[in-house]
Amino acid sequence: CRVRAWDWGVPGGGGHEYRGRLELVGGGWCMSDEAAAHYSPALEQLALGRRFLRQELGGCATPRVAWQIDPFGHSRQLAAIFAQMGYDGLFVGRVDHQDKGTREELRELEMIWRASGSLDPPSADIFTGILPNVYNPPSGFCWDQLCSDPPVVDEDSEENNVDNIVSSFLHIALSQAERYRTNHIIMTMGSDFHYENANLWFKNMDKLITHVNARQANGSRVHVLYSTPSCYLWELHQANLSWSLKTDDFFPYSDGPHQFWTGYFTSRPAFKRYERLSNNFLQICSQLEALAGPVAREGPYGPGDSSVLREAVAVAQHHDAVSGTEKQHVADDYARQLAEGWESCQVLVANALASLGGRKENFVFCNALNISVCPLTETTSRFTLILYNPLGRPVSWPIRLPVNGASYAVTDPQGQPVLSEVSPGCPPPHPGLLFQASAPPLGFSTFKVSRLSRGDPPAPPARPPLSSEPQEIRNEHVRVLFDPLTGHLKEIQNLDKSISLPVFQSFYWYNASVGNDESLQTSGAYIFRPNSSQPIPVSSSKRVPTYLVKNALVQEVHQNFSSWCSQVVRLRVGQPYVELEWTVGPIPVEDGWGKEIISRFETTLQTDGRFYTDSNGRQVLERRRDYRPTWNLSQTEPVAGNYYPVNSRIFIKDKKFQLTVLTDRSQGGSSIFDGSLELMVHRRLLYDDNRGVGEPLVELGANRQGLVVRGRHLVLLDTVESSAERHRLLAQELFMAPYVVLAPGGGSSYGFCPGDSPQTFSPQFSGLRQELPPNVHLLTLAPWGAGTLLLRLEHQFERGESANSSQPVTIDLLTLFSAFAITSLQEMSLGGDLPLDAVSRLVWTPATGTPWGGGGPGSRVTLQPMEIRTFLATVQYQEPGAGVGGA
Amino acid sequence: CRVRAWDWGVPGGGGHEYRGRLELVGGGWCMSDEAAAHYSPALEQLALGRRFLRQELGGCATPRVAWQIDPFGHSRQLAAIFAQMGYDGLFVGRVDHQDKGTREELRELEMIWRASGSLDPPSADIFTGILPNVYNPPSGFCWDQLCSDPPVVDEDSEENNVDNIVSSFLHIALSQAERYRTNHIIMTMGSDFHYENANLWFKNMDKLITHVNARQANGSRVHVLYSTPSCYLWELHQANLSWSLKTDDFFPYSDGPHQFWTGYFTSRPAFKRYERLSNNFLQICSQLEALAGPVAREGPYGPGDSSVLREAVAVAQHHDAVSGTEKQHVADDYARQLAEGWESCQVLVANALASLGGRKENFVFCNALNISVCPLTETTSRFTLILYNPLGRPVSWPIRLPVNGASYAVTDPQGQPVLSEVSPGCPPPHPGLLFQASAPPLGFSTFKVSRLSRGDPPAPPARPPLSSEPQEIRNEHVRVLFDPLTGHLKEIQNLDKSISLPVFQSFYWYNASVGNDESLQTSGAYIFRPNSSQPIPVSSSKRVPTYLVKNALVQEVHQNFSSWCSQVVRLRVGQPYVELEWTVGPIPVEDGWGKEIISRFETTLQTDGRFYTDSNGRQVLERRRDYRPTWNLSQTEPVAGNYYPVNSRIFIKDKKFQLTVLTDRSQGGSSIFDGSLELMVHRRLLYDDNRGVGEPLVELGANRQGLVVRGRHLVLLDTVESSAERHRLLAQELFMAPYVVLAPGGGSSYGFCPGDSPQTFSPQFSGLRQELPPNVHLLTLAPWGAGTLLLRLEHQFERGESANSSQPVTIDLLTLFSAFAITSLQEMSLGGDLPLDAVSRLVWTPATGTPWGGGGPGSRVTLQPMEIRTFLATVQYQEPGAGVGGA
Repeated sequence: CRVRAWDWGVPGGGGHEYRGRLELVGGGWCMSDEAAAHYSPALEQLALGRRFLRQELGGCATPRVAWQIDPFGHSRQLAAIFAQMGYDGLFVGRVDHQDKGTREELRELEMIWRASGSLDPPSADIFTGILPNVYNPPSGFCWDQLCSDPPVVDEDSEENNVDNIVSSFLHIALSQAERYRTNHIIMTMGSDFHYENANLWFKNMDKLITHVNARQANGSRVHVLYSTPSCYLWELHQANLSWSLKTDDFFPYSDGPHQFWTGYFTSRPAFKRYERLSNNFLQICSQLEALAGPVAREGPYGPGDSSVLREAVAVAQHHDAVSGTEKQHVADDYARQLAEGWESCQVLVANALASLGGRKENFVFCNALNISVCPLTETTSRFTLILYNPLGRPVSWPIRLPVNGASYAVTDPQGQPVLSEVSPGCPPPHPGLLFQASAPPLGFSTFKVSRLSRGDPPAPPARPPLSSEPQEIRNEHVRVLFDPLTGHLKEIQNLDKSISLPVFQSFYWYNASVGNDESLQTSGAYIFRPNSSQPIPVSSSKRVPTYLVKNALVQEVHQNFSSWCSQVVRLRVGQPYVELEWTVGPIPVEDGWGKEIISRFETTLQTDGRFYTDSNGRQVLERRRDYRPTWNLSQTEPVAGNYYPVNSRIFIKDKKFQLTVLTDRSQGGSSIFDGSLELMVHRRLLYDDNRGVGEPLVELGANRQGLVVRGRHLVLLDTVESSAERHRLLAQELFMAPYVVLAPGGGSSYGFCPGDSPQTFSPQFSGLRQELPPNVHLLTLAPWGAGTLLLRLEHQFERGESANSSQPVTIDLLTLFSAFAITSLQEMSLGGDLPLDAVSRLVWTPATGTPWGGGGPGSRVTLQPMEIRTFLATVQYQEPGAGVGGA
Repeated sequence: CRVRAWDWGVPGGGGHEYRGRLELVGGGWCMSDEAAAHYSPALEQLALGRRFLRQELGGCATPRVAWQIDPFGHSRQLAAIFAQMGYDGLFVGRVDHQDKGTREELRELEMIWRASGSLDPPSADIFTGILPNVYNPPSGFCWDQLCSDPPVVDEDSEENNVDNIVSSFLHIALSQAERYRTNHIIMTMGSDFHYENANLWFKNMDKLITHVNARQANGSRVHVLYSTPSCYLWELHQANLSWSLKTDDFFPYSDGPHQFWTGYFTSRPAFKRYERLSNNFLQICSQLEALAGPVAREGPYGPGDSSVLREAVAVAQHHDAVSGTEKQHVADDYARQLAEGWESCQVLVANALASLGGRKENFVFCNALNISVCPLTETTSRFTLILYNPLGRPVSWPIRLPVNGASYAVTDPQGQPVLSEVSPGCPPPHPGLLFQASAPPLGFSTFKVSRLSRGDPPAPPARPPLSSEPQEIRNEHVRVLFDPLTGHLKEIQNLDKSISLPVFQSFYWYNASVGNDESLQTSGAYIFRPNSSQPIPVSSSKRVPTYLVKNALVQEVHQNFSSWCSQVVRLRVGQPYVELEWTVGPIPVEDGWGKEIISRFETTLQTDGRFYTDSNGRQVLERRRDYRPTWNLSQTEPVAGNYYPVNSRIFIKDKKFQLTVLTDRSQGGSSIFDGSLELMVHRRLLYDDNRGVGEPLVELGANRQGLVVRGRHLVLLDTVESSAERHRLLAQELFMAPYVVLAPGGGSSYGFCPGDSPQTFSPQFSGLRQELPPNVHLLTLAPWGAGTLLLRLEHQFERGESANSSQPVTIDLLTLFSAFAITSLQEMSLGGDLPLDAVSRLVWTPATGTPWGGGGPGSRVTLQPMEIRTFLATVQYQEPGAGVGGA
């Protein structure tokens, strides 16, 4: 095996020298999950790990092989990211057992994965190999302290077993070789938690190698050697074969009949949301660090630091972290790390806002606004609200703050009054001040709030009596109708396009299997296995109690499905979608049954078994019930075997109309019968599923009751052609939402530095000179080194998805930003660690499909559909507090 | 801690240099058992290990501390051996929990053990320390891969636990210090199977030491350091205290109420016998190697080797070997190793006999004589029998060979006829040729056997009809009477002394406990716990079927207690004792109960709760029912708590008479009520007892039925004063029995070397010029190095045990042996590895009793009672085959 030479390799780094004898594979901050990870943190954790290796070990240590040997299924978007990071190949361990069996017969365990339907090959092509034994050694050859296979005894002893072991190894090697295409095969010698006592392994492998190779004297043609994944990959490449082409993904994963790993798409829904929200705040923190410059880290509130949150979000991508498949105390620790990251970032955000806004406030971060807790707004009569918007376009955002007054005056940065309402609390003790706040691209607006009337908040409306009158809510774009008899949603109308669609929505639970005659498999943290394909309605009565809330800003129908499951169906003013805010838990298990709760939508759409789910929040893949694109499926679980990961959206459509549901976190979803779609929102299980976690998935809240989880589904009804324009931008707003910062008082502020005049105060700021076109997303704006920033711009539409937005788009980076001047710019590979023109990947030949064109992307400032371009910018900041970019 | 200087230390050895930073403790070939081990192999295994260390690492590596941290109780004789090997101290782990509790209160966990009542102090005194936690670390401080205590986290982390761990450690250390007498305490950091991954331990101990010692800055007076047992012992010695004196032993061991480790005294009775027999043969093999010289290893039958058997017997002393507490496959392996040792030794024995006897025969070793299988004697009409006697005095030994003829002529080495009988077989298909053969001291006699009549063997006697006539057997010394109604033994008469004692003997089984309300403890390989103190008779009917066999050589009563338990009560001509040959098994367990089988003797002796058992086959200790000499016993198990190890003999006595039972292997024994004694002969159990073996004790024979075991109890009835003279010599004969070698033909032999004349043939040989006095035993005669032999001579009586034999005795070593001339002689310590005058032990002060006299033993050729003296002799051999020592 030869160590490959690297054009761009630089010796040294961190005082170490890397010679290639030890190969680093993967190289992310962790080995990320593929089903529940969103592409934004997933690619950043990979970049973070790669950067760390480069800094510590030098450029020669850069991993060439992506190594996803444990994740439970593999996503197309992550494969595209690996390709664009510069990896030569990807090895995976877990593939559906039927898929693997078929590929073994066809010798297609190794293939080229074309991981994008939009990008020109080969940018998103990656050679992909399925390992022979997941990550384990061949049967009988496990020599760790955690194994019980007999060691190789080659002494003069009763126990000498060399002949047996060598014969057994040769048999296994020859049989494996029949399933792969070249004379080279790979064996993974190790497993989970192995090599704590590495000598056991090496002592026995040394002996195995010696004795197997000694058989060559008797005519054996097997030669064994220590190798590395990239050496193996190199030999495959040298074989100069053409390889089969794959374009779909590897979901769902099952390791046997009835064993679908589709439960973890939903497991730990609160942590999945916290992870998503944390990445949202990390992006804001990074942006503000980049926009404000060094002062953000050294400003008046103390040392700010984005790295704590960056590393916490990175490790939360682990395939036993955001996946929800870790033990409870490990999940608690992930959450703790994230919370620590928030603290460091909040200092940084305060520093940056003080610098960019030109004054030091007593900033308050109300982390518990989601449960209507904010001591500042609940106790004071005057306060300031700053809304930071991390998107490249202006945003209008509903504000809801717990208050103690009956009416308030709110003014915008220009001093103009803003319409506000104090609505009865929900829960009632906490009345909420509502107003719609807007903020400029990559910037903030400051709002002043003063209490007008101290009196009691308006009484909550008396619950209307049960009535058979039709109920509805509506705004200028949407009308939602409810069945007066049952209280269920029954129809959605898109008023702009005059579309009307019957939509029945309700909550159900699947009865978690405890194993049966067909299979002992239980439902658990990894596995979803319902006892029956018919879920049970959460509401035991025909009529769901409802009540209506209407005011100038919002119209809501509150539905109570049971004591532990409720929903608010909401339309805000100006909002072209229906918001379904569900609250589920504590899931009762006193009846001895684990439960998996779904929200199901039933429509009259003719869907022909098809539905659509996103891949890590970016690409969209077509799914077909009881079908796999690359093999003849024998379905054993009519529900669980049709579940797919939903990171951001799921939709169904017919020839004309499309119903899209966006999620605020990763969930499992499916369409179990035509016209329907469903999302699993919460699960509570009583048995371990025997995949390693060793605990049943029993999440408890602070009160030791079952965990209560709240979330939102945003429902869009539109024509098929227009839907992408809606859901792309809305999904972007969901994962890069604005952030609220508060301060007491109404502007009685002082200068940033002693002696600053009050005139330096900027109530509004934008980091961009002009907003970005709707199809461009500023994916990353983050500090990189002294005076350099990392930029990632992406085209957020797929090819052909939208007549307008799927077109190429060109922007001028040099004139884009207002907070700093870019003095030089270098385009990098996706990871940010390699200059784009230094990336040199192995070139592979697909057996079918488009041959590789070679060469990189075209113009440096044009984005093609789904393209992400990454730049390192050297920048110069304006004077702090010099009032840059006031809108 | 200082490394002690060794007067006799020699640098180097095996190319290594030993600096004392790593200390070797114990140093035996294994850590031997103390209850079931016989002193002969037990001291030899210790010497073998010590010699190995000296050869490999040099004299400085010699262990100074005996380290018996796991054996399940501790014997006085082994303590005496440790003292005489030169150890400075002994550390033990397992001591009865009540004993330990008492000693903790009294601060007497460390003491001086006076391990002999015969030897002048301090030769058999040894400082003995009881470790605080057996061999385990203090609770909470276990850091091996097999432990689950939290590691020390001293980083800046949520998990940092330094304060807690240090405080907990200080608490434990101070509390331990209250139970010991000096400012120094020892903690054993490790356990069974630990240190496979030593880094885990050292990493955490490094941190612990750092952080505990750092507390000294806050006033802590605890200083922790890595140390060794001998450094700790050194500090105890430096404290210059006087220590309490112990003279009894540490049996039986219990680690809690109802948990007496007294089952292993009997567990695996067949292996216990095989081990005893193997040491017997090892001694013969060693002797013949020493007597014949180098030709024994290089002789005409191929390379002979005693080391295979020596090492196999040595490892069989392990506290989970001869103890019977190993898993079945481990027991099988011990037996395999012994069997291999026999093979190598048989080649050596053949070489030696050919050389000493002056001719090469086709020697045949009938290893299955115990089951009456010997193809040679069963098929040929003429053969030769050589009887080798390893004792220092002549022996007369009953021969029984399976044959196919009706009558035979047997002649002795002088050509004189020897009385023989062919008796009906037992089992009947195998008739046996019986004759009494004698052999000279340390030598052999050759007998010729010719078939006289080929006809059928005499028919077995018809079973006599049930009769109420009194039955008896007798010879010139003993008469044994049986109850004609029950068939049981009822009386023994010593005809020489006109003593008559009613003795009832029968077999019973204890119902093995499966746990009950008092305790969950089950009977198992280690633990003996009967369900009831009343054992159940094996025979379900009042009358035991019997039949009588009488001829000129033997008189026998055959008793059938059940289908799986029978006994032959036998008197041979000239034999001053009764031989009870019992056969037990397969023990039936179909009723769901494990069973522990005993042979119980009931007499009219007034025993006042006392009985006597040997210590490793050498010293004898008084036992008292429900009593311990050094603490106030709270008895929880009236049977199991009174069981003691019996290696070679147990007796009861009144003021005049003594009934002694000698065993052919180690067994558990007791006297549960006055006048009785009992021995447990076999056990079959259905549950593991939770002490580590992890298997129930279900031994199966070759036919997969429960194992059948046969053994012998030799019963002596004599006056108290005369009994020791009898049982000492008889016990010696039992563990150093003669050995039978066969050859086809009747002396048609050829010379040892081509051209030798037939006149060189010596039909009889003795290695001694005169026999040894009866109180002297040649314990060891074995090759040591080129031209040197190791000799151990012992006085085999205790002080005061016999008017005559307990006197000092003097012998002349230089003129003792006939096979070689001793050219120089050096007295050594017991291990043979240190010159006696180079041994320098720490001197300790006992709080009571005889102060230490200092100085070594007196004259070099006189043996005091119980003294063992060890010599290295440089020797010169006669010409091979020169006819030395013909009797």
